[in-house]
Amino acid sequence: MATHMDAEEFRRQGHAVVDWIADYWSGLRDRPVTAQEPPGAIAARLPAAPPEQGENFEQILADLDTVVTPGLTHWQHPGFFGYFPANTSGPSVLGDLVSAGLGVQGMLWATGPACTEVETVMLDWLAQLLDLPARFRSTGPGGGVIQDSASSATLVATLAALHRAGGGDWRAQGVTRRYRVYTSTQGHSSIEKAARIAGLGDEGVRAVEVDELLALDPVALRTAITADQAAGVVPALVVATIGTTSTTAIDPLPAISQICREYGIWLHVDAAYAGAAAVCPELRHTHTGLEYADSYCFDPHKWLLTGFDCDAFWVADRAELVETLSVLPEYLRNAATESGAVLDYRDWQVPLGRRFRALKLWFVLRSYGVEGLRAHIRSGVELAAWFADQVRADERFELVAPHPFSLVCFRLRAGDESSAALLARLNATGRIYLTHTRVAGRYTLRLAVGSPLTRKEDVFDAWRLVSELADVADQADSDQL
Amino acid sequence: MATHMDAEEFRRQGHAVVDWIADYWSGLRDRPVTAQEPPGAIAARLPAAPPEQGENFEQILADLDTVVTPGLTHWQHPGFFGYFPANTSGPSVLGDLVSAGLGVQGMLWATGPACTEVETVMLDWLAQLLDLPARFRSTGPGGGVIQDSASSATLVATLAALHRAGGGDWRAQGVTRRYRVYTSTQGHSSIEKAARIAGLGDEGVRAVEVDELLALDPVALRTAITADQAAGVVPALVVATIGTTSTTAIDPLPAISQICREYGIWLHVDAAYAGAAAVCPELRHTHTGLEYADSYCFDPHKWLLTGFDCDAFWVADRAELVETLSVLPEYLRNAATESGAVLDYRDWQVPLGRRFRALKLWFVLRSYGVEGLRAHIRSGVELAAWFADQVRADERFELVAPHPFSLVCFRLRAGDESSAALLARLNATGRIYLTHTRVAGRYTLRLAVGSPLTRKEDVFDAWRLVSELADVADQADSDQL
Repeated sequence: MATHMDAEEFRRQGHAVVDWIADYWSGLRDRPVTAQEPPGAIAARLPAAPPEQGENFEQILADLDTVVTPGLTHWQHPGFFGYFPANTSGPSVLGDLVSAGLGVQGMLWATGPACTEVETVMLDWLAQLLDLPARFRSTGPGGGVIQDSASSATLVATLAALHRAGGGDWRAQGVTRRYRVYTSTQGHSSIEKAARIAGLGDEGVRAVEVDELLALDPVALRTAITADQAAGVVPALVVATIGTTSTTAIDPLPAISQICREYGIWLHVDAAYAGAAAVCPELRHTHTGLEYADSYCFDPHKWLLTGFDCDAFWVADRAELVETLSVLPEYLRNAATESGAVLDYRDWQVPLGRRFRALKLWFVLRSYGVEGLRAHIRSGVELAAWFADQVRADERFELVAPHPFSLVCFRLRAGDESSAALLARLNATGRIYLTHTRVAGRYTLRLAVGSPLTRKEDVFDAWRLVSELADVADQADSDQL
Repeated sequence: MATHMDAEEFRRQGHAVVDWIADYWSGLRDRPVTAQEPPGAIAARLPAAPPEQGENFEQILADLDTVVTPGLTHWQHPGFFGYFPANTSGPSVLGDLVSAGLGVQGMLWATGPACTEVETVMLDWLAQLLDLPARFRSTGPGGGVIQDSASSATLVATLAALHRAGGGDWRAQGVTRRYRVYTSTQGHSSIEKAARIAGLGDEGVRAVEVDELLALDPVALRTAITADQAAGVVPALVVATIGTTSTTAIDPLPAISQICREYGIWLHVDAAYAGAAAVCPELRHTHTGLEYADSYCFDPHKWLLTGFDCDAFWVADRAELVETLSVLPEYLRNAATESGAVLDYRDWQVPLGRRFRALKLWFVLRSYGVEGLRAHIRSGVELAAWFADQVRADERFELVAPHPFSLVCFRLRAGDESSAALLARLNATGRIYLTHTRVAGRYTLRLAVGSPLTRKEDVFDAWRLVSELADVADQADSDQL
């Protein structure tokens, strides 16, 4: 017989793992933010084959420190300012632990009713928390669901849009005409990926010009749509963004949704990172115009203290979504589904199976409460604003874009090479980690605040490093000349 | 400031959650396997809105017992024989806990080198464990990756197949001609779903006839392919199955792969449930002919003691896969990627982000060792064989299909109504849970063994219940006449 870990052993080892994580968090500040090892170094520390006999758990846990942690980028580190945050928190980790311990597979309501119902209620809670339009609540024809990521939300929205635009043909016959998806030149790469997956090809996406704030230009959108129509291309989907990945630009939803209504085009709003800001009433103006969107998503796993994966995705008409994705073989038939009284979330997503991810949301929303979540968002916005003030006051630097949320985009006036060299020097310190983008072709540093461990002192330190190493970078540039 | 749970509080509450899970497992046997509540009952126990102030963690944990567990289907219950197993185990739960605690986002090698490298090594370990063809190892041009589920593996394989069949057009222009995907009439519903998502429509899938063992008929496959070619339809993909969902039939890979090579068609082999059996040398004959497949997947989260989600997916040519899915925006550019010396798993999957799922595999493979995993599989196969023997010896019943793995398909000779009534009675006891399928149109009960808590006594009890309630069901049928 396989020797399964019994409940008492699980208890003992589980406590040890919890302690290991608590120690990891306590010691995070003293680690370099990123790994300093070359490709292959971690793999080389692992045996070439799995062991014949089972090993004891103490040894496995000990190897975390020798094999794994030296080879990590520490996303929860107080000095992690790269990409967007991928927040987690104690309550989220423990909610996920309960989910793993239950081992429930919630593909259908019937295969785990609580898995489905808690999720529906949590998405309704989130909709209230962000003050989303009523049409997204499950009490009407809409509703929310957890996707693994905003990429998958975009894909699912693309498919629903094709189902609508295809006039009944798409489900049976697929892509039989040319369709177009519109987003701004700043739209996320997942939009292109979704179009490719959906069989539209890269040419199926039209990147619409932006204004000087890097927000989609509605006049250019309308022009693109009418030109396509004239050429026999069917406009299927517009993806508008609240908080673009590069600079957190905000597309003008009122004008865009007006155009979508006029042409009958599905409007998906991607607020992957910035949606969390709407928990604060003073930041909800960023969501103006959302009331006519067909779908909307944001990632609690980015800035709302809920570990990856947890993208919250809503549709205004869940029947349209289910029709798009449902396939019903005999072995999944059951009385609850046939009664029509339940939601089967497998029909709202690409995969069939699903974890009980609503638990971590439940734990986070209750542990922090509305006030705690607002405090977290406000802290990020304030620290970013402080950092932006330092940049603004320093003549060596310039701000590249507005900073409505917790991301600051900046560069050295000295030029691209200086800015790239500065980033390399900053990251080589191991004390902070920033990433870059290009804005209008120019190399730009991005500092995104949001780790729950990041305090005021950490952002002060970050600025001190940026300021100090900027001179070194300048010097390097001069040396090169 | 948001009041984040500090390390000491996490330690305290984490121990409590671990204890809660240990108690849950210890008490599982005494619970009904499935929830006994009507739709909406769980949601009604939750407040309509999130709390303004944070609540204390003890209260949240206590609510698991009042709100959640009474509303669950308990997939880890010793009496759970439904669908396929969705195994988990102590080591898996704790590996997932470490992953949640680290909160690493491994979309690129650079964003968490250990996340990528441990995954690559684990997939190589698994390939050895199952004795998969050498072409799937990362040391050559192939390699493995974790997908959330076999559905996503099928989708990714479909896209790679289209990229190959499209002759260079597909990435840019999408689906511009008619393509066909072939699988047997017993192929999983995710194949139809993948084809729909990929823009081929439901008509893009050809369900090929099966033989008397419910395995794909290669002669019918060849006929379908040549007919399609004659009609200008491009054959793109064959999905062969080892262990179909309905009855665990095994498609004849040697003949199928011969046809695929002849016509240059991508062959994907879906062994979602049954792949785990190949850890046992005496069951590897089920995988004969795999050496020419272009891709293969199985789910450690089904029968190999690793919690959902963990589908292991391999390709023979990783460059083809990456070319199919890669989109590279500026903000994801980095030196490691550009060096070509690393794998970026975001290009092997639909979503961008990814969790550190290799940790649970590492914990499971080391904790059980090869011998422990074999013992688990053998236990399931033996218990299923014992159950099948009882069915065979009882003239009221008949076996509907062979049982090469741990699934037994059977029915009452009395007919569909009796069989359906028996299933309803069995599940109403709350002591065991079975699901059904239809084989050649006839209602069939499925008993799948695989929960780590299931012992010989549980399968004995299951048979006793089946035997006892069969008479009641027969009686009910007579009453209705």
